[in-house]
Amino acid sequence: MVHSKALVVGVGDGLSASLARLFHAEGYEVVLSARDIGKISALRQETGAQVVACDASNPAQVQKMMDCIEGSLGICVYNPSYRQRGPLVDLDPAEVERSIRVTAFGSFLVGQAAARRMLEQNDEGTGRGAILFTGASAGVKGFAQSAPFAMGKFAQRGLAQSMARELHPQGIHVAWVNIDGAIRNPGRSEPDEKPQSMLDPDEIARNYLALIRQNRSAWTDELTLRPWVERF
Amino acid sequence: MVHSKALVVGVGDGLSASLARLFHAEGYEVVLSARDIGKISALRQETGAQVVACDASNPAQVQKMMDCIEGSLGICVYNPSYRQRGPLVDLDPAEVERSIRVTAFGSFLVGQAAARRMLEQNDEGTGRGAILFTGASAGVKGFAQSAPFAMGKFAQRGLAQSMARELHPQGIHVAWVNIDGAIRNPGRSEPDEKPQSMLDPDEIARNYLALIRQNRSAWTDELTLRPWVERF
Amino acid sequence: MVHSKALVVGVGDGLSASLARLFHAEGYEVVLSARDIGKISALRQETGAQVVACDASNPAQVQKMMDCIEGSLGICVYNPSYRQRGPLVDLDPAEVERSIRVTAFGSFLVGQAAARRMLEQNDEGTGRGAILFTGASAGVKGFAQSAPFAMGKFAQRGLAQSMARELHPQGIHVAWVNIDGAIRNPGRSEPDEKPQSMLDPDEIARNYLALIRQNRSAWTDELTLRPWVERF
Amino acid sequence: MVHSKALVVGVGDGLSASLARLFHAEGYEVVLSARDIGKISALRQETGAQVVACDASNPAQVQKMMDCIEGSLGICVYNPSYRQRGPLVDLDPAEVERSIRVTAFGSFLVGQAAARRMLEQNDEGTGRGAILFTGASAGVKGFAQSAPFAMGKFAQRGLAQSMARELHPQGIHVAWVNIDGAIRNPGRSEPDEKPQSMLDPDEIARNYLALIRQNRSAWTDELTLRPWVERF
Repeated sequence: MVHSKALVVGVGDGLSASLARLFHAEGYEVVLSARDIGKISALRQETGAQVVACDASNPAQVQKMMDCIEGSLGICVYNPSYRQRGPLVDLDPAEVERSIRVTAFGSFLVGQAAARRMLEQNDEGTGRGAILFTGASAGVKGFAQSAPFAMGKFAQRGLAQSMARELHPQGIHVAWVNIDGAIRNPGRSEPDEKPQSMLDPDEIARNYLALIRQNRSAWTDELTLRPWVERF
Repeated sequence: MVHSKALVVGVGDGLSASLARLFHAEGYEVVLSARDIGKISALRQETGAQVVACDASNPAQVQKMMDCIEGSLGICVYNPSYRQRGPLVDLDPAEVERSIRVTAFGSFLVGQAAARRMLEQNDEGTGRGAILFTGASAGVKGFAQSAPFAMGKFAQRGLAQSMARELHPQGIHVAWVNIDGAIRNPGRSEPDEKPQSMLDPDEIARNYLALIRQNRSAWTDELTLRPWVERF
Repeated sequence: MVHSKALVVGVGDGLSASLARLFHAEGYEVVLSARDIGKISALRQETGAQVVACDASNPAQVQKMMDCIEGSLGICVYNPSYRQRGPLVDLDPAEVERSIRVTAFGSFLVGQAAARRMLEQNDEGTGRGAILFTGASAGVKGFAQSAPFAMGKFAQRGLAQSMARELHPQGIHVAWVNIDGAIRNPGRSEPDEKPQSMLDPDEIARNYLALIRQNRSAWTDELTLRPWVERF
Repeated sequence: MVHSKALVVGVGDGLSASLARLFHAEGYEVVLSARDIGKISALRQETGAQVVACDASNPAQVQKMMDCIEGSLGICVYNPSYRQRGPLVDLDPAEVERSIRVTAFGSFLVGQAAARRMLEQNDEGTGRGAILFTGASAGVKGFAQSAPFAMGKFAQRGLAQSMARELHPQGIHVAWVNIDGAIRNPGRSEPDEKPQSMLDPDEIARNYLALIRQNRSAWTDELTLRPWVERF
């Protein structure tokens, strides 16, 4: 396999664990990156993953993290996001900055570092790698009382579009995934009478894999995933 | 397998043949529908498909075609489209009508007939079936000198969105696929120096199958497929 | 004034009357076109308008109507729409056809006829004329149980985009206006406690005029108008 | 006149000067805010404007600037933007941060401060004021080699959408204006053979005024302005 490493940035919730397990099962060597790596020791053992502590919104730390990853990088997924909710007039500017920094600026730093690595890799007809960003409907529609999340997710989507237009012709697949609904996880699941009304993280992961496996004659740059009962 | 029939409407070009072969390989009993069924006899033999002659823009013929399909319907794909190009002032109203009729009104007739059938089927936790429409970037952006195609594809996309919002909560997966580029086929392929610069119909078909296999906790209603070197 | 005639197609409701009055007040010679011209005799007198009976979805009648208009055509507004609501599976194909025909095909016929006329007119630095289509949010988002309206309005919007890309460089301003809400009219007005919660037709007309008056260094091709309290 | 002050943030280029002159001519008391106020002394004299030095991306300075403005605030326009162009892999993270900070974070700070002020003002049936953001097509489509601008303008657009959904029902009109093309100014104008192929800043200003004058039964939240010959 040409591309052997799968980097998942922002580990902790259900989706990241599902991605780590699926990439591991598919033969990738998984690298998990998080600010606080204490809580992912179980997942580390389960997937044999390399774990790297990193604040993804810090340029130097992102550089250092990427330097820790040896060999070729086939997949890079960026998950972190942060938001503050509330009436516009009550928002704390520092929290707004943090929302943009964690959600969008970190996406840039990790995306740029991954692109640099992938551009150095050979392209043997199947592309040089895939960079996926976990988005939200807040990146398509700015909701009331949620300006910081709108700003972060819109910026992330703009980044992903710009990267896709620039990097697709160079063999790097870039996609932004709009997770339009709540994700089921150990601490949060739907009532029995509404089955599958939350996004199953294993199913999201399967869709990420489907994107990664797309032949480059048919690449997708934006994908929306939404539970069947979700209004939109 | 609960859903055993896969209906492909508008057979002839590379995509329809790829779909027929893939669905057949996946265990579906394929039904091919076209106005002129003479040219699909080879494909019929190869896939063991049932073949039904039908003008998909004719309400009575669509009804009759659907009546010919026994058992449960798991997949319905609508491919036909028609267009006239040229300066707006030179367009023939009859050709504009035909563009809308073949591309959009036929989508409605087949989509409605498929939905009726699927709603009668049991939903055992995996949904009642999938209805896919083959679209184009003309359904997202109206190009100069291409008003009839824009009208047809926009209308088809509006139909698909309306159907998705209405039918998803009833267990029917509806998706509109934007094929943004030229499809490679026996009579049209890219030069060697631009590999994979056309959409490979087998790869498009794989993406249709990925949509069909989505768990309903994570359904996609619009999907864009575009060659890596295509500008957008 | 170079462009002296203002054609309003589809007269009857509040918006058309507001447009007729405003164009008249601005010095245009108004032409009103409707299938049933009996009900617009009062408006005719008030605005001194020429009135032409015409089924706007009939090619021959549209041609004939345009032939009745002498002199230069500065403005053409297309208002007619038709819709059938209800569950997809219950829709009558004939009604779907009619929805597309009245809303979209008529837009094409009138838009084409107006473009032909305007292209023959001199462009003395201010453009050759403006063609506006009255749209709805159904042309941006396909709603459940409203497939026919979605199809008609999406198609109309695709037409307008195609026309704008083709005709703007030839000096004809084309715009699609998304009226996102209910229009106040003699038979339908909001409760006192929700002032201005419906679109005031005179205010819509003012916005149409603002579009028409745009200098061609700054043209708008799509405009959304929405009451302040409308959710979107 | 209830709303007497018109604040224009980010003064210097042709658009800001056109806005200042037009608002002054319409009877507003103009307030000009810029980081470097040395270069706007001529405009200050011409419009009798109050001038306030302010780095719009600095929370404390924005607060202080707003405190300098007495009386009611009818209009607030945010113009500043910053961008770095170049291949993604060559971008300087500090420049990316600055792009987001100037274009989007400053929009938040000024928008929030303006909203606070306007919410304190009486609404006598015409709304409490208008907040406009000068955007670009980079906020709708992320272009290659332009990730920082895409991130800034997308984030600004997300902010504006969120503010519109939240503040419209409270009587504050928020709009994001997509200036899709180059603006003519003293140092940059189009060749004679391509008249009006750049956006005339006076015409942009007229469109801003038209937005501000919209009755709240028909508000626009996003407006695109594009020269007639601009491709899109």
